Amino acid sequence: MSQLTFGHIDPSDLSLFTDRYELTMMEGYYESGHTQRATFSVYFRRLPADRGYALASGLEQVIAAVEAIEFDADAIAFLADQGFGDDFLSFLESFEFTGEIRALPEGTPVFPNEPLLEVTAPLPEAQLLETLVLNQVGYQTLVATKAARMADVVRRHGDGQDLVDFGSRRAHGADAGLKAARAAYVGGFDGTSNVLAGERFGLPTYGTMAHSWVQSFESERASFEAFADVCGDDAVYLIDTYDTVDGAERAVAVTDDRDVRLGGVRLDSGDLVELSKAVHEIVGDADIVVSSGVDEYFLRDFFDDDGVASAFGPGTALTTSKDAPDSGVVYKLTAVERDETFEPSMKLSPGKVTYPGRKELYRVERDGSYAHDVLGRHDESLAGEPQLETIYEDGSLVYDPPSLSSIRDRTQREVERLPERCRRVREPEPYEVRISDGLETLRRETERDIREREG
Amino acid sequence: MSQLTFGHIDPSDLSLFTDRYELTMMEGYYESGHTQRATFSVYFRRLPADRGYALASGLEQVIAAVEAIEFDADAIAFLADQGFGDDFLSFLESFEFTGEIRALPEGTPVFPNEPLLEVTAPLPEAQLLETLVLNQVGYQTLVATKAARMADVVRRHGDGQDLVDFGSRRAHGADAGLKAARAAYVGGFDGTSNVLAGERFGLPTYGTMAHSWVQSFESERASFEAFADVCGDDAVYLIDTYDTVDGAERAVAVTDDRDVRLGGVRLDSGDLVELSKAVHEIVGDADIVVSSGVDEYFLRDFFDDDGVASAFGPGTALTTSKDAPDSGVVYKLTAVERDETFEPSMKLSPGKVTYPGRKELYRVERDGSYAHDVLGRHDESLAGEPQLETIYEDGSLVYDPPSLSSIRDRTQREVERLPERCRRVREPEPYEVRISDGLETLRRETERDIREREG
Repeated sequence: MSQLTFGHIDPSDLSLFTDRYELTMMEGYYESGHTQRATFSVYFRRLPADRGYALASGLEQVIAAVEAIEFDADAIAFLADQGFGDDFLSFLESFEFTGEIRALPEGTPVFPNEPLLEVTAPLPEAQLLETLVLNQVGYQTLVATKAARMADVVRRHGDGQDLVDFGSRRAHGADAGLKAARAAYVGGFDGTSNVLAGERFGLPTYGTMAHSWVQSFESERASFEAFADVCGDDAVYLIDTYDTVDGAERAVAVTDDRDVRLGGVRLDSGDLVELSKAVHEIVGDADIVVSSGVDEYFLRDFFDDDGVASAFGPGTALTTSKDAPDSGVVYKLTAVERDETFEPSMKLSPGKVTYPGRKELYRVERDGSYAHDVLGRHDESLAGEPQLETIYEDGSLVYDPPSLSSIRDRTQREVERLPERCRRVREPEPYEVRISDGLETLRRETERDIREREG
Repeated sequence: MSQLTFGHIDPSDLSLFTDRYELTMMEGYYESGHTQRATFSVYFRRLPADRGYALASGLEQVIAAVEAIEFDADAIAFLADQGFGDDFLSFLESFEFTGEIRALPEGTPVFPNEPLLEVTAPLPEAQLLETLVLNQVGYQTLVATKAARMADVVRRHGDGQDLVDFGSRRAHGADAGLKAARAAYVGGFDGTSNVLAGERFGLPTYGTMAHSWVQSFESERASFEAFADVCGDDAVYLIDTYDTVDGAERAVAVTDDRDVRLGGVRLDSGDLVELSKAVHEIVGDADIVVSSGVDEYFLRDFFDDDGVASAFGPGTALTTSKDAPDSGVVYKLTAVERDETFEPSMKLSPGKVTYPGRKELYRVERDGSYAHDVLGRHDESLAGEPQLETIYEDGSLVYDPPSLSSIRDRTQREVERLPERCRRVREPEPYEVRISDGLETLRRETERDIREREG
């Protein structure tokens, strides 16, 4: 029998969740004594299509990973087998993060070129984190953004309906299922169908019945009777297995017969606006849960067309960020220490503007709304509220991660302060991010220096 | 300090990686004594856009999960807290899979309505597996399909170039990073940049250097010198940090100076066709690795335009299946046992045709190529080669999962037997899947019975 591998990831495995070139470079930095500090910045070059903002998420997982990272005996043995040298492996055996991390708190809207995260650490340490940081922050930020857009549509056009993540099955692997549930909550969702996400992150879990329940009985009526007998009051019946309107009438009849209270019905196919109205006439005050093809565009149209629902279960569109599955976040070296000062650094990319150096981000408020941001140098003092928080200092965690529910509150508060034009779900207009004079000058000088040096 | 949670998943946690409604239904089945066997089928309703076939992948993870599933004390305590009843929890404590699983071996092309997997087990057991099976098989099948299309383009239009997964950073979470590396190999890739995937699945790992290596030194030249000193012969230099053609000349000059052999250069931005030709003139026989925006469409055009490369590093497009991030695979009840026979079952969906009952899939070959498939009833005997293998029988694993390299060989053999028209990367034509007379009759009769019963 072959060795069976699910491919699970323990915290002690996170050190190897990295691209091989990170380790190749780490060995090179180590062997050539090139271990001075450098700053890496995590940012979007541009927002995914149709997004007027992105919502920072995933910082807690970065911290948990930094706390967990170690190269244990198994990892060292594997790397030896892969050809890494003994001296470097000894260095890895005592690896620990000694640097600084600054970051936007989760639930903060973020725009192109703004640092989600800045890591300043000896080159080998900062280099190691690239792959995992992008993997965790990029994905959660995508999902939190998608969720925040849906929650915002419900707040502005709906009637306080619940939003529950139903998308674990279509998420890309098990970690995505868990992290999507978390990020959806960060974005303003009320819970998830994923039981393990409930256990891991303390999220409310929800669930009703599937078509298989109905099909497994001799008739829809028999299946509803059995469900009423088992669940009693307030159960939610899936009514579209054979005919949605008949199903609604049957749910009412069976719960009447059995003398239990009808909690609600779920619609999972067909013309959901029209069916929701027809079903509402039948079920009265009972909940209507809508769960097929739900995303922010669907919700906008559903409310415009006067659909009736008390909860929505977005799935695939949420957990795959289907219209924008690629966050495009990057982790780029922006400064490197030489002779005890940080020298700005950048890649030259035709057609792309990149900003070198360590940074601060200021958000400027006017009349209770955000007017614009200013991206500046780390050592400038500018108007507006600085946004980056210090997470690690000299390798010590100095940040107390907030609870998920306070992050969720922050999201709502922050999104509601954004200008209406960038909260639109279709064709939002860009939020203004100004570049400080100091940073613009630094960019020009850095580019000029590179052209002189490399030309 | 708050509790920090990365959200890792141990094998013993897989039992909770399920939608809450699965557990609700399980409790209902258990409490109402409704625990007869049923068959669930995993299949695509339609293939993702531009796909002429999908490639089955992820079966090993299903098996590993079934072997690992248990409800340990922590899981039971959590479920008690969530309101599940004591009797049901006692049942879960001794949960084990006692059913049958049949499946297409990994590396088998699959088409709409064909079972990737059929689970026949007591209702509570089969119900539990839905979420995890879809999550694992759906994602790996997407990535293996994408990889197989790229590998097929390289075989047919290229020159035996290597394909290496560079996409962990953009994958949706850590599990996706690992499973994408595995599925890419199943599809025909040569390896991955992900070190942990190398360790877990025995995959070859590859990596060179990033822009940060170049930027961290005082000049590109100094960075290449340090790399040559550390790596010696056959290293690969990233040459597009400042100017790609200058970088190529510098890589040649530095390796000449240092008297080491130039392994190759990597291009990561710009007009990759034109740059690859220009760089080829400079670096001669050294490798050219191309790694920005690579997917099957890019490769097709790159070869048409006579680009020059020895290896490609697809990233985002591969690991997010960017043009088709949603597999759309479903897990549907197709039969349920009553009075010791399996009765066909289906949902009625306007506009969707679904096939009830347990099935067999026959693939018909003509002149060394696949001519068409026939989807039939499990108990029919039809022409062609039956495709489903028995994986579990009475709860026992009776299948010896093949090695990844033999799965990879199977992929190539099977894809090459498909008609040219469904191997095209753009606008492929559908492969013919015939429905047997027996199955078509069963579908009509089942639908008629449902309409009579429910109408």
